[in-house]
This record gives sequence, C-alpha cells and structure tokens, in this order.
Amino acid sequence: MEQTGIRGASMAAEIAEQPQALQRLLDDGRHQVRAVAAVIAARQPRFVLIAARGTSDHAALYAKYLIETKLGLPVGLASPSTLTVYRAHPDYRDVLWLSVSQSGGSPDLVESAISARRCGALTVALTNVVPSPLTAASEHGVAILAGPETAVAATKSYTSELLALYLLITAWAGGDGTAANQIPEYAQRVLDRGDAAQIAPHFRAIDRLVLTGRGFSYPTAREAALKLMETSYLAAHAFSSADLMHGPLAMIDAKHPVVAVVSHGVGGAAMLPALQRLAERGATVTIVGDWTAAPSAAHRIWLPSEVGESLSPILQILPLQQLAWEMAIARGYDPDAPRGLRKVTETL
Amino acid sequence: MEQTGIRGASMAAEIAEQPQALQRLLDDGRHQVRAVAAVIAARQPRFVLIAARGTSDHAALYAKYLIETKLGLPVGLASPSTLTVYRAHPDYRDVLWLSVSQSGGSPDLVESAISARRCGALTVALTNVVPSPLTAASEHGVAILAGPETAVAATKSYTSELLALYLLITAWAGGDGTAANQIPEYAQRVLDRGDAAQIAPHFRAIDRLVLTGRGFSYPTAREAALKLMETSYLAAHAFSSADLMHGPLAMIDAKHPVVAVVSHGVGGAAMLPALQRLAERGATVTIVGDWTAAPSAAHRIWLPSEVGESLSPILQILPLQQLAWEMAIARGYDPDAPRGLRKVTETL
Repeated sequence: MEQTGIRGASMAAEIAEQPQALQRLLDDGRHQVRAVAAVIAARQPRFVLIAARGTSDHAALYAKYLIETKLGLPVGLASPSTLTVYRAHPDYRDVLWLSVSQSGGSPDLVESAISARRCGALTVALTNVVPSPLTAASEHGVAILAGPETAVAATKSYTSELLALYLLITAWAGGDGTAANQIPEYAQRVLDRGDAAQIAPHFRAIDRLVLTGRGFSYPTAREAALKLMETSYLAAHAFSSADLMHGPLAMIDAKHPVVAVVSHGVGGAAMLPALQRLAERGATVTIVGDWTAAPSAAHRIWLPSEVGESLSPILQILPLQQLAWEMAIARGYDPDAPRGLRKVTETL
Repeated sequence: MEQTGIRGASMAAEIAEQPQALQRLLDDGRHQVRAVAAVIAARQPRFVLIAARGTSDHAALYAKYLIETKLGLPVGLASPSTLTVYRAHPDYRDVLWLSVSQSGGSPDLVESAISARRCGALTVALTNVVPSPLTAASEHGVAILAGPETAVAATKSYTSELLALYLLITAWAGGDGTAANQIPEYAQRVLDRGDAAQIAPHFRAIDRLVLTGRGFSYPTAREAALKLMETSYLAAHAFSSADLMHGPLAMIDAKHPVVAVVSHGVGGAAMLPALQRLAERGATVTIVGDWTAAPSAAHRIWLPSEVGESLSPILQILPLQQLAWEMAIARGYDPDAPRGLRKVTETL
C-alpha cells in the first residue's frame, strides 16, 4: 500500500506542469482568443450567462467578476436545468452564452448550449478537449491548450481556463492582455516555494475546514474547497467573507481552521471586518496572499504583491492545489483515485 | 443548563407561526404585490439581477428559477462587491435589480441598490422590515409581512420571502397566483406531522451532512444546510444533484448521511441518476418529498404531491427547519443563541 512514489503522481505532475501550460496558451492561444473576442465585441451582447459545472463553475465565477468590472455588463451563472429539465424557452437575444468545460462532454452543458443558441444567444465554448460535443454545439470555440488532463482532480485545466478567460475578456474589452505575460514565471515561483508542505502536517487530522475570500478571491476559496473534498474527503466549506458573517460564522471556533484568500488589492482590504471577527472567535487562520491585515495568522502562504487582483486567482489556487495533494498523501489517500468519481461526469 | 422549555423557544415559535404568516401575506399583501408587478411589467426589463445575502440568497435562487421558467428572462445572482468594492459602473438599462432582505439593513445591499439605480436599473426591494434603509434606497418595495423575527436563525422570513416572490413573479407574468391559496393549509399539515422529530435522533452524533436537490429544490438544500450550520454547527454541504456528481461524491460513504430534496415533478425526476449513484455508494439517504424513485431510502419526510414544483420550496423547508431545531436541542445547543452571530449583519 505504501507506494508514495506512485500515489498521486498524475495530480502532482499536472500541478507542476502549470507554468508550461500557461506559457503555451500565451504563446499559441492568443490568435484564436482575439478572433473570438472580435466576434463577441461585434455582436455587442448586453448580458452574459456562463454555464459550467464543478471546477469550471469556479472559473465561470471568476469570469463573472472580470466581465462585470472590465466590461460593465450584467452577468449571471446559468442554471442549465432551466433549459434542460424545465424546458423553458427564454428570450436570449443580446445574450452571450459562454460554456466552460475541461472535457466539453457534459451532456447537460451540450444540451443547454444548443437550447441557448435556439433562444437567440451567441454561443461560445471554452474547452480543453477540442473538438468536443460542446464546441460542436456552440458557434465559436476557444481551446485552453492545457494538454491532456488525466488526474480526476482538475488542476491545470482550471488555471488554463482562468487565463483563457482573462485573455478573452481583456481582448473583448479592447486590451492587449500583456499584463498576463509574467504569470507563468510567477506561477513557477509560487510552486517552487511549496509553502503548503509546511502547513499540511498541521491539518493532517482535521475533518473540516472553512475557506473564505471576497470578489476575485472568492472563486479561489470555492475551488480549493472542492479540491480538498475530492482528494482528502474533508468537509471543506467556502464562503464569501460577506456571507460568512450571515450565519456560517457559528460553526467556527478555535478547533476549526480557516483559510482566508486575501488578495493584494481592494477585494483583500474588504475582508478586514471578517478577519477581525475570525480573530475575535479565536479561529486558527491561514492567510493566502496579503497577511499585513492579519498579524495573528497562524500560517502564511506567499503570493506576489505585484500581480494585480484580476490576475491573482491564477496564482492563488496553486499552493491550495499543493495543500490538497499534500493532505491527501499525509492522510493515506491516493489523490489520483478519489472514491466514487469518474473523470467525465454525465448529468442529464 | 437543562431548560428545554426555554432553549430554542423563539425559533420554535417562529417555525410554528409560518402558516399564519403565509396566510397574512395572501390576505393583506396581494394589493402591494400587484402594484409593484404592474410597474415592473410596464418597464419590460430584459435582464434581472437579484441581490441578497445568507438565507435571503436562497430565496433569490428560487426567484431565479421562477423568473427564468415563468418569464423567460435571463437572471443572475448579483455580486454586490462588483459595485461596492470594485466600484464598477455597469450598464443596467433594461435591468431589474431586485434586492431581498429580512432586515433591509445590510449596508452592502443598500449601497449596491443605490449604485444599481444610478447605473440605470429599475430597483425593487423585498423586505420584512418596512420601512428600511433598503426600501428607502430602492424605487419600489414589497413587504413580506412575516411579522417581527427575533430568532437569529431566519425561518418564517424565508418562507414569506418565497411566497412574496411567487406572488410578485406570477403577477408580473400575468397570472393570478391563486395556486398559492392552499399553501398555508399544507404548511400546517407538514408542520403538524413533525417527521423530523423521528429522524433527529439518528443524526444526533453526526458531524457532517450532505444535502442535495435539483432546480426548484436546490435552494431548499442550500437553506437547510445553512440552518443546520447555524444551529447545530454541523458541517452541512448543499450541492445541486448535477454538481454532486462532479467531485463532492467522493466525500460520501456509508457513514455520511445525505438528505435529498426530491420534488414531485420533473426536477425531482432529474435527480434519479444522482440517487442511483448514492445508492451504489451505500449512502444513508433521507428523502424529503417524492421517495418513489428511492425505495431504499433510510428515512422519509412527507410532502404533498398535489403542490406544484414551483410552490413546493415553501413546504420543503419546513421539516428541515424542524430538523435543525430538533438536532440543536438533541446536541445540547440553544438554537436561539448561535455562537458568534448577530441578527443584522453589516458587510462593507
């Protein structure tokens, strides 16, 4: 059973590959991203719906903040069941329907893209597998170029989705996206530090964990919670720091650790009241990012302060992927073989 | 310490009051609801953004399904931080900005309603406390008439929000909402059965619970999870049954109970694949609603099959509120005094 050299090898390799995958997207993906961005800009959508499941749903949430702040358009995360289960036929003229999926194979995403197009939406699919049923069902496709992903817990496809969304939305807004050029290098630095390895032993015996973030950091908290659930079977909860104050704070005490993803920027600054309430409750807090406002933090994970908030989610998740991997190994699990999961999930 | 007659008295009273609160809204609230619905219909919004926090956010999610299916309009749940933290100035012409809040006092909801109005949205606030800072900040208000709510864990304000949203959206769609007339009577029947009292002893020692639902039942799963976290400090997770298959299934085994909210209708029928996967994993499943597709369910909570899916969330939550109360008492907590919570939460 103790084959530590083999357990988790796929997930570890895909975590490590991320700087290269991101560089590939920057080098080889910009042309297609610009072409699709031009099509979107020409159609002048007034509302955006983003359809995704699981890890990709967290990339969708990132895109929601990015479109709202960079383009000033209202964005909703789609509820595919409206179309696929309740068979509604909404008015989607002036709507961009953006699907995000690693495999491009989830039947409910394919079916909802077909329905959305029939309802008048401009349909764009952002996938890793190309071609896929989802790209076939959509008018335009963006390939995230992460390369084959074999680990069940998605890692490199998530960061490549984030970067592809950044490039697409920035180009649509008329920018050149050059701010992303240093991201692969920073990603390598964050991975090389391996801060999570120091923290994992402290978390080895816990059975639950609360993660929190605000604005651009909130998708990171959600995605990290999913990784921990998938690989370590932890009960990991993610809350926006604003929602945390509306109830879930009751479940936190000194025994229950909290991971706060605090970006260097206004989103991180807005977490101050929540960090103060957590300190009052004696919570054991690990800060990912800007720890200047939380001097009493039990653990700290470094992120570069030079990277702007809208790009920081690509870096924030890296040490938390490492943490999920380290914790699974420390707890005797194989992060490559989560119980009960298949890689492509079929939802009707 | 053993003052069982006093512990949880407020929450118990407010759970029990719900049939009367719902009847009051039907009797006294229809006029104002129709007036606001007429204003909305006349403005012909093309997109809807709903802003809410905590329990009210689950009512917002219910409204999302209802608007999408009854009115065929795209709906997004608002990220207030886009306006309040990142100071974006989006184009909200043709947008209805609907705020939902018990207290009407959350500063970030008030500030985001003011910003949304400035960005061109039609602003409507649905609150229990009237007048409130939120109704003052919005052009139109709907009072949910639940009466003063003193328990920290919101119960009657949730079901009254659901019914007010049903009446508002139905009137906006040109309907008369009479399908809701029997809801108070059904609510009384569900509460009188008290099915949760039989189940709570089985859950007394658990430290986590997964809840799942699809479509209209998904907000119920989310709200029930919040109630359990607030009152019993359980790690309660809610997933759409579609998302459950994308990762979190790994954390479920025979030791970890699952509560599945299965509506009588197409949303319930769409949960069949997830119920089958849960059965394969040997999960201990409690069905709330239609248990015909899950013959091996460990526990069953009855709901009337005559109530249509779009109204069923008002009834589904009732036994789960009772379950949260019963579990808190059984575990020696006071559900009226959750640790670390205040009734009005201030989020900047």
